[in-house]
Amino acid sequence: MTDKLPTIAIIGGTGDLGTGLARRWAQAGYNVIIGSRTADKAAEAVTALRAVMAERGCKSVSVQAADNVSAAREADIVALTVPFAHHRATLESIRDGLSGKILIDVTVPLLPPKVARVQLPPEGSAGQIAQNLLGESVRVVSAFQNVAAEHLKDGHSFDCDVLVCGDSKEAREAVIALVEAAGLRGFHAGSIANAAAVEALTSALIFINKQYQCHAGIRLTGVAAPGA
Amino acid sequence: MTDKLPTIAIIGGTGDLGTGLARRWAQAGYNVIIGSRTADKAAEAVTALRAVMAERGCKSVSVQAADNVSAAREADIVALTVPFAHHRATLESIRDGLSGKILIDVTVPLLPPKVARVQLPPEGSAGQIAQNLLGESVRVVSAFQNVAAEHLKDGHSFDCDVLVCGDSKEAREAVIALVEAAGLRGFHAGSIANAAAVEALTSALIFINKQYQCHAGIRLTGVAAPGA
Repeated sequence: MTDKLPTIAIIGGTGDLGTGLARRWAQAGYNVIIGSRTADKAAEAVTALRAVMAERGCKSVSVQAADNVSAAREADIVALTVPFAHHRATLESIRDGLSGKILIDVTVPLLPPKVARVQLPPEGSAGQIAQNLLGESVRVVSAFQNVAAEHLKDGHSFDCDVLVCGDSKEAREAVIALVEAAGLRGFHAGSIANAAAVEALTSALIFINKQYQCHAGIRLTGVAAPGA
Repeated sequence: MTDKLPTIAIIGGTGDLGTGLARRWAQAGYNVIIGSRTADKAAEAVTALRAVMAERGCKSVSVQAADNVSAAREADIVALTVPFAHHRATLESIRDGLSGKILIDVTVPLLPPKVARVQLPPEGSAGQIAQNLLGESVRVVSAFQNVAAEHLKDGHSFDCDVLVCGDSKEAREAVIALVEAAGLRGFHAGSIANAAAVEALTSALIFINKQYQCHAGIRLTGVAAPGA
């Protein structure tokens, strides 16, 4: 056993949300592997990430590039941040590398063009689809769906809580630690079935953003921050 | 046309949430009809409501009792606060009185005993079931699903926002006015399809309440309060 921080792969790590998470976790000292469909595209993202970290004065960050399949295989914890249209195919491509690991599913089932309308899949949620597809050897935990990528990408603190859903409490605890490493509050919010609530809320927040010309988030009230 | 405040019927108005809404709206000066399956049970609730209002020093409240069917027929706006198990049957019993009106659906599709687990119906949400069943002559607006009844019942302000979903923007506006009359902030959160997000969130909040021994609510962040 070691105290070394785990290595996190970010599958689809070149998108907005993946970029934001990579910056937060790299800055917090985690080993980050940015995955993309090709290693070349991932390498570009790593170069950009190093430049941002240097601007922020972070001298020793541990970041690598890999194709998605290698990234998932080499990491201790895997975060999936791909558009819903690629969710299932990406999971199938990386599943051999996931056994025994935690998969953090950040996917929201948005069906363009009506992204401000809740359109949950028949399975209930993207998180549930992942858990069904991967089976019990992978602990799927959904998180970060309500967080604006723009806020994650900059280095500042911002006002949004993260509801963390998954069937394993221990896996949720591990993800809550990663939420906190990203500078946010994370809360146990139930089994993977409850990912439906958080994923659906993203569409409602997109509606609210359009209606009120804002970047809305949510805060839990009436509950003490974990550890506070 | 008149400036008189509308008459609101609360169907299932003897339950916790119905009691809370009745207190808030009666205190704000609305005419409230408490509906129940029998007029006798409604009359008991009205007696209790008058006593609470007297304790709070509210001298002239306008509250009446009726069976659910009469209550719906006589009101301008109808709020439905029944357990999900009675949702469809209650709607069928009152539908003749709803034509041309706004129905505020407060129902959450909780399926005991697993009330902390999201279990949305195949139609997507209770609000969508109501809109499908009632047709276009009734404007269904979902609201108040995340509000703790205990907080509504006491007279104090508390920290929870209300996401308001419905296909008619004008109807949502009318309900937001009622949310504000109850002392809360209300926000346009999309079409009735988006009721799924808010209903599902209730199960997640129930989980959070158990996990953290609290009465959790939500606040929107990053968006100015309407009218502020």
